[in-house]
Amino acid sequence: MKQTLFTAGGDLRQIYASNKLAGRFNVQITGFEKDVFISESIRYIDFDDMSQCFADYLLLPMPVSADGIILNAPYSKNSISLSSIISTVKKGGIIFGGKIDSKSRDFFEKSGFETIDYIEREEFSVLNAVPTAEGAVQIALEEMPTTLSGSEVLITGHGRITKVLIKILKAMGCKITVAARKYSDLAWAEVFGCRTIHIYEIQKTISDMSLVINTVPAMVLDKSILERADPDCLIIDLASKPGGVDFSAAAKLGIKVIWALGLPGKTAPVTSGEIIADTVINILSERGLLYE
Amino acid sequence: MKQTLFTAGGDLRQIYASNKLAGRFNVQITGFEKDVFISESIRYIDFDDMSQCFADYLLLPMPVSADGIILNAPYSKNSISLSSIISTVKKGGIIFGGKIDSKSRDFFEKSGFETIDYIEREEFSVLNAVPTAEGAVQIALEEMPTTLSGSEVLITGHGRITKVLIKILKAMGCKITVAARKYSDLAWAEVFGCRTIHIYEIQKTISDMSLVINTVPAMVLDKSILERADPDCLIIDLASKPGGVDFSAAAKLGIKVIWALGLPGKTAPVTSGEIIADTVINILSERGLLYE
Amino acid sequence: MKQTLFTAGGDLRQIYASNKLAGRFNVQITGFEKDVFISESIRYIDFDDMSQCFADYLLLPMPVSADGIILNAPYSKNSISLSSIISTVKKGGIIFGGKIDSKSRDFFEKSGFETIDYIEREEFSVLNAVPTAEGAVQIALEEMPTTLSGSEVLITGHGRITKVLIKILKAMGCKITVAARKYSDLAWAEVFGCRTIHIYEIQKTISDMSLVINTVPAMVLDKSILERADPDCLIIDLASKPGGVDFSAAAKLGIKVIWALGLPGKTAPVTSGEIIADTVINILSERGLLYE
Amino acid sequence: MKQTLFTAGGDLRQIYASNKLAGRFNVQITGFEKDVFISESIRYIDFDDMSQCFADYLLLPMPVSADGIILNAPYSKNSISLSSIISTVKKGGIIFGGKIDSKSRDFFEKSGFETIDYIEREEFSVLNAVPTAEGAVQIALEEMPTTLSGSEVLITGHGRITKVLIKILKAMGCKITVAARKYSDLAWAEVFGCRTIHIYEIQKTISDMSLVINTVPAMVLDKSILERADPDCLIIDLASKPGGVDFSAAAKLGIKVIWALGLPGKTAPVTSGEIIADTVINILSERGLLYE
Repeated sequence: MKQTLFTAGGDLRQIYASNKLAGRFNVQITGFEKDVFISESIRYIDFDDMSQCFADYLLLPMPVSADGIILNAPYSKNSISLSSIISTVKKGGIIFGGKIDSKSRDFFEKSGFETIDYIEREEFSVLNAVPTAEGAVQIALEEMPTTLSGSEVLITGHGRITKVLIKILKAMGCKITVAARKYSDLAWAEVFGCRTIHIYEIQKTISDMSLVINTVPAMVLDKSILERADPDCLIIDLASKPGGVDFSAAAKLGIKVIWALGLPGKTAPVTSGEIIADTVINILSERGLLYE
Repeated sequence: MKQTLFTAGGDLRQIYASNKLAGRFNVQITGFEKDVFISESIRYIDFDDMSQCFADYLLLPMPVSADGIILNAPYSKNSISLSSIISTVKKGGIIFGGKIDSKSRDFFEKSGFETIDYIEREEFSVLNAVPTAEGAVQIALEEMPTTLSGSEVLITGHGRITKVLIKILKAMGCKITVAARKYSDLAWAEVFGCRTIHIYEIQKTISDMSLVINTVPAMVLDKSILERADPDCLIIDLASKPGGVDFSAAAKLGIKVIWALGLPGKTAPVTSGEIIADTVINILSERGLLYE
Repeated sequence: MKQTLFTAGGDLRQIYASNKLAGRFNVQITGFEKDVFISESIRYIDFDDMSQCFADYLLLPMPVSADGIILNAPYSKNSISLSSIISTVKKGGIIFGGKIDSKSRDFFEKSGFETIDYIEREEFSVLNAVPTAEGAVQIALEEMPTTLSGSEVLITGHGRITKVLIKILKAMGCKITVAARKYSDLAWAEVFGCRTIHIYEIQKTISDMSLVINTVPAMVLDKSILERADPDCLIIDLASKPGGVDFSAAAKLGIKVIWALGLPGKTAPVTSGEIIADTVINILSERGLLYE
Repeated sequence: MKQTLFTAGGDLRQIYASNKLAGRFNVQITGFEKDVFISESIRYIDFDDMSQCFADYLLLPMPVSADGIILNAPYSKNSISLSSIISTVKKGGIIFGGKIDSKSRDFFEKSGFETIDYIEREEFSVLNAVPTAEGAVQIALEEMPTTLSGSEVLITGHGRITKVLIKILKAMGCKITVAARKYSDLAWAEVFGCRTIHIYEIQKTISDMSLVINTVPAMVLDKSILERADPDCLIIDLASKPGGVDFSAAAKLGIKVIWALGLPGKTAPVTSGEIIADTVINILSERGLLYE
């Protein structure tokens, strides 16, 4: 018999995650009264019927809650409390969520549920590097008056997103320079066909660039560097707060900066939801909790 | 001493072509009274001063004229006649233009000027395949709710644009099927890592596709094929008139079709202008008319 | 009922072609008395039993014959005449062969058989570009004391083999320069990420090269160019006779030249045979002579 | 004034490392009496003149010594003791070596020298993944009777070498399956266009493979798996001792296994030596010991 997974709250990604999970679980969902299409393979549970549920797993959105009390549920007309939502899980069940704040986590654990944050899984970050990189490429295509082919592109930092960006942008014919700190990162970028510079050498080469993509969450593109940049250069900042660009200096210099956060959910919500589903499946599979 | 090249009319591409040509020629330009930035390396000629010009070459836009009488000059406040514009070229000069209609061509040739259509050059088409392919990728990224990575993509036809699309989309992780007529085209697509089908087999495979890019200027995606497609499938039609899709059938079936014509000028006007410049340089270089 | 295809003579490729064809035809074979493994799906016909055969098609090797009289059959102990071999085909049958000399062709046609040379098919050349390119890469890997990654490589000519070489060598991290004559070929090579030079400019850049691969069947790398090359440079000549390198000048200068002809049959005999089979299938399919 | 670096022993890689280092250091070398070309930029030091040397750095080969007493110096006619060789370094100098055994390391450190093993540097391993991958590709090209294009290839493990192999083999048209243990590794392989399986699922898919490349230093391809493999399958084992293949089972089954160790030094000695040089330069640069 199939296990039951209850999903609640969040945005469209939660729906797409549920669609993918519906193949392996009885999926029940709540928190989407507002005009959203729910496929037939999923059972919609009204707010008042939640007390009838005894799910094996509860899948919560990213983030789970703003205050540790009320579920993040923008598509719901109701205010759903975390305490009401955990009543849908049977004893010994597991609660999955994204970016779980400490207050919510404490509450779940004190209520006796194992709590797992899927965004802490390495494969979650790896898979999300793809929609992030595609989103950055989309922005570059939209904003630049030239082709990417033949463009001089600087990428700062050499993490997962950079590796995916290199793969795509090389095929598009970009001339890529990677700026990083560690010699091993520079070696990798070289192996994948990029020129490399140490991150403190950016000012030597910035003036040649038509596109700069920053992935480092630290002040990498400061005023002294921006002053040397071509005013027509486009900067895409993918780093989480506080970002890696001196935005006000850029504004004064007339350099366009696009600070693009949360790209996966925006540019590829379906894939983004499916990545959540895949990660949950991996976690359960690893623990031997999935029966084919 | 540098030769003189006079450019007139057209849109921003004409400006970008002129900028690139300014390195090799004395470039004079007219037809841009409306709020357009002209770099200092180019000399602007007022409408009334054209009679003072004795250029070696005249570079006209694409298309040259709608009626064979008046120059295509949307950024000009004046109506510029072809007869006034050719007065800027000295005897024995060459007139370059794009998509030159037969009436204009007759007029130029009867006036004693050799007339060359740069869009008939093979390298012009090759180079323009890049902005066209990038434009198609941009549309796909904008419209699809999934990543391109992992998507099933059908490309119909196997010309220049398809070859560039394959290069980019393979690197982005698409699963590509190419539909073409000639065995040698199918062999090429296979060599470049695509599955292949004969063009009359599209209906067998269309239902698996998330994205279809048509490059064939003939009714390839007719009603009987569209009926088998997934309604969520995105169709991008790159074929010139009459296009390759039964648009009204698609509309009835709720399938989104984007008919994307003239992508180079829209998505990469700078590159598009530079391709015109490069083609003109190649033509003159081939004839030994360029002195380094 | 399956049609019958008779294959005779040639080397191992003929066996591999037969193996692939055995799925669609009753395949009979002769000309391999010498220690060669014939799979059970193929029926071996002894020399003396050929008169019992009434095949629909006859598949002959590449080349068919050295003299227009005796079949090219190096694995046979017997000397097989063309006249005896065509007795295996029924009236109205088709004879396929590779590099059919005019004397053999005349004989077949006068005997009433349609005669088709598979090497004249465009897809045959396209598909064979792959084993040729792989063979060239193998030689480079064997001969060079450096990695291909990071090497400066010059490829002369821009035909099918060059296009496949660019795909592989770019991924291996080579810095490729393509030398060609036509602007459209140079444009293609540029689109695929190569630097480009006109073929008459080779002498300007030859000294930087660690590897030169010639695909042009004309004297491209003459003495004056070789004198400027690095003596450690490796030259691989893929051009058919007379080749594109001044071999004696290279020898005097101590430059290693490997003239690699017939690579597909040598480095990938199985694939090479299967390409023959695929081409025959395409030809028959095109004519509506294949029943699934 | 340039610093002095003394190199001693080892094979040709030591020479190539020295050539690359000669640009930044006064390089002195010993241990190559046998017929080896030493460039003019390097000063050869005879065995008897070593006592005149006061180098800043000593670069020893990989491995440094078999017994912790005598230097690994196969190109030398003399037996060079570690104690004589360290007399060439001045007080406070640094000794670099590869795979330094504990006895040698103890001796160097007790003698007052900082001792650095360059093979422990991450970028050393990254850069060596390239010649290793190229060497594996060369073996596959040499041994397989088919093209790599279109071949089913299984790669076990997902470390540095696998990442480089994927890049090359994808471009060559291989259909790659990666078998690994960690979900994040499988996610990466998927992002880079491979099918993926868990390492304990190899037996399900092994029969489809034409080529298996093992990078895991543990018994991955045991008898039970080999029994399911196609006897024509080629296995290349890149794992260090004890390797990852049951060699005797493979031999009984008639499956060809090539155990390829130390590929960088064998297939690309020049590059291999230069990687040693680059690593030494990185280490000194990181410590601020290099003056441009």
